[in-house]
Amino acid sequence: MQEIAIDPGVAAAVRDFKVPDSLGFGVVNAPVMYSAEWRDGHWHRGRLLPHGPIAIWPGARGLQYAETVFEGLKAYRVGQARPNLFRWRSNFQRLGDSARRLSMPAVPEWHFLGGIESVVRACAEHIPGRSGQSLYLRPFLFGSENGFLLRNSEAFRFMVIASPVESYASGAPTVAIERSDVRAVNGGIGAVKAAANYAAAFRASAAAGARGQPLTLWLDAESHSRIQELSGMNFFAVIDGALHTPELDGSVLPGITRDSLIVLARHLGYTVCELPMTIGALAQQIRTGQCTEIFACGTAAIVMPIAALVETDGTEYRPACCNDTSATLRQALLAIQECTAPDPFGWTHAVE
Amino acid sequence: MQEIAIDPGVAAAVRDFKVPDSLGFGVVNAPVMYSAEWRDGHWHRGRLLPHGPIAIWPGARGLQYAETVFEGLKAYRVGQARPNLFRWRSNFQRLGDSARRLSMPAVPEWHFLGGIESVVRACAEHIPGRSGQSLYLRPFLFGSENGFLLRNSEAFRFMVIASPVESYASGAPTVAIERSDVRAVNGGIGAVKAAANYAAAFRASAAAGARGQPLTLWLDAESHSRIQELSGMNFFAVIDGALHTPELDGSVLPGITRDSLIVLARHLGYTVCELPMTIGALAQQIRTGQCTEIFACGTAAIVMPIAALVETDGTEYRPACCNDTSATLRQALLAIQECTAPDPFGWTHAVE
Repeated sequence: MQEIAIDPGVAAAVRDFKVPDSLGFGVVNAPVMYSAEWRDGHWHRGRLLPHGPIAIWPGARGLQYAETVFEGLKAYRVGQARPNLFRWRSNFQRLGDSARRLSMPAVPEWHFLGGIESVVRACAEHIPGRSGQSLYLRPFLFGSENGFLLRNSEAFRFMVIASPVESYASGAPTVAIERSDVRAVNGGIGAVKAAANYAAAFRASAAAGARGQPLTLWLDAESHSRIQELSGMNFFAVIDGALHTPELDGSVLPGITRDSLIVLARHLGYTVCELPMTIGALAQQIRTGQCTEIFACGTAAIVMPIAALVETDGTEYRPACCNDTSATLRQALLAIQECTAPDPFGWTHAVE
Repeated sequence: MQEIAIDPGVAAAVRDFKVPDSLGFGVVNAPVMYSAEWRDGHWHRGRLLPHGPIAIWPGARGLQYAETVFEGLKAYRVGQARPNLFRWRSNFQRLGDSARRLSMPAVPEWHFLGGIESVVRACAEHIPGRSGQSLYLRPFLFGSENGFLLRNSEAFRFMVIASPVESYASGAPTVAIERSDVRAVNGGIGAVKAAANYAAAFRASAAAGARGQPLTLWLDAESHSRIQELSGMNFFAVIDGALHTPELDGSVLPGITRDSLIVLARHLGYTVCELPMTIGALAQQIRTGQCTEIFACGTAAIVMPIAALVETDGTEYRPACCNDTSATLRQALLAIQECTAPDPFGWTHAVE
């Protein structure tokens, strides 16, 4: 592991930073960022810099051809002296999977953890400390080589930027069922965290937002019936008292919060089923009362209850019940993340 | 149409630029670029700048979520005093289609044509003049707003960068048939020119390149049998003397060179069929000798004969014939583009 170069402007940037009263999600920029370059076939020394615009070639393949993969994780400091990361190693491994899928060079562990820790350490005093708040971290890797040939770059940049955040969402929104646009397909890149997976979602998201649904539920490309995910969050339902979530079929992102909830729920005595789920069957289970709750999960939102699924024509599938299970799971997971409960799974990592 | 602001550095950048003897494709940066911003709900005045790195937020949605669409077109100046553009209006319309698919604001015609013409005018003396050479133009639009929420940006940047180029490729390469990875699916964004369409292609392209095939032929996501395109180029075959190309099924890019060849070939008396084409049927038609030629087309390559399609196990489908049709079409199209033949279709546009 190489020593990180700390830009002379970092101290002033951290000193002058004030955490605003209203944080929102991803709106406030942390005062520092990490940057490291891959060129001439290897990784170079990382640098900690004041947050600010970066200079890239306008023809960089990361921009022109979406040669970009990323991660999202959080550092918590709720009632703790030291910040702690949640399951950083899972994010590190998934970034490697994403890079391999796009045939980009993997980010070495010392850049990934070193970059994250240097940002967290520099911002430690600015990590908001109320329950539900955290420092959201966005490691990302993009092709920085300028050029129009349709091939991978020969130069890359790995960065970590960050944002002090509130919980992603509060309340229980309604979610639009997307019946025509498609997010991902088997053989594509839906199972990795690539920038390109989000481009297809903007139109449907914007249209759903205009109808009053802030989020979209994506179905499979072949049959338009199997539930995939929410683009940014995985999907769960409580059916006959058991937790159900769509299986990882090759086009669903293997969410780390999804995996954490599965492990945690089983630990708490729930039955968890990872199987294909169709929207038709789920709608019927909601109507009959077998499905009592539906919710989404992800790093940003942790667990977010869903009030109802809504078709384009306004038809609603609204579970009758009370979100007890999602509240229980959210509380149990957040307690581990915030270090107010024991961590039997070794998920938390203190930043010294 | 607003007047374009010309940066004081432009004159020196143009004066100091030397066109290298060896151009390649997309390797040499033209000395100037155009940039215009959309913010506060409207487009602002465009600027002509010396080519160079641009400053963007590291959290810009164009980079983080592939909120980027682009075009590719060429300016020719072969034996002409004035450069001329080929079918710029088709590129303009397609950029609008692409922006709509990603729910981004459309680039107005005065920015699109004004940006392109200002770059072409400034570079006019540097547009290489041998047949097959041109100034490749890359207009693109990306979300420049910093932030992690999964929604469209509220600020955008439209740019035109350019590159003096040779023909994209010479000779007749072999092309790998991709049987497992998928480029695009109906309901996705394969039918528009979004950066995100290229990310899924890197892995298969890199693997095919390692096996000696520089290009990949993509099949449909559902059946892995219907021919789509080459990612950057459309596909044609000559079968029983007629031109066949896959129909625009919603996941194939409606290439402007593809359309030009269809129009031109019909004008020259060829029968042209736009229908579903399966790789199985085509392989059989190559074996029986019914299919005599296969080729790809696109703005960069114009028309590129394909020597053979190759399976991962090395099995080849190699037409026996001679590429007469592709050579005829290439010559006829290039003659219109380079203004050495009459343009009965109104495709060329002189830049005054």
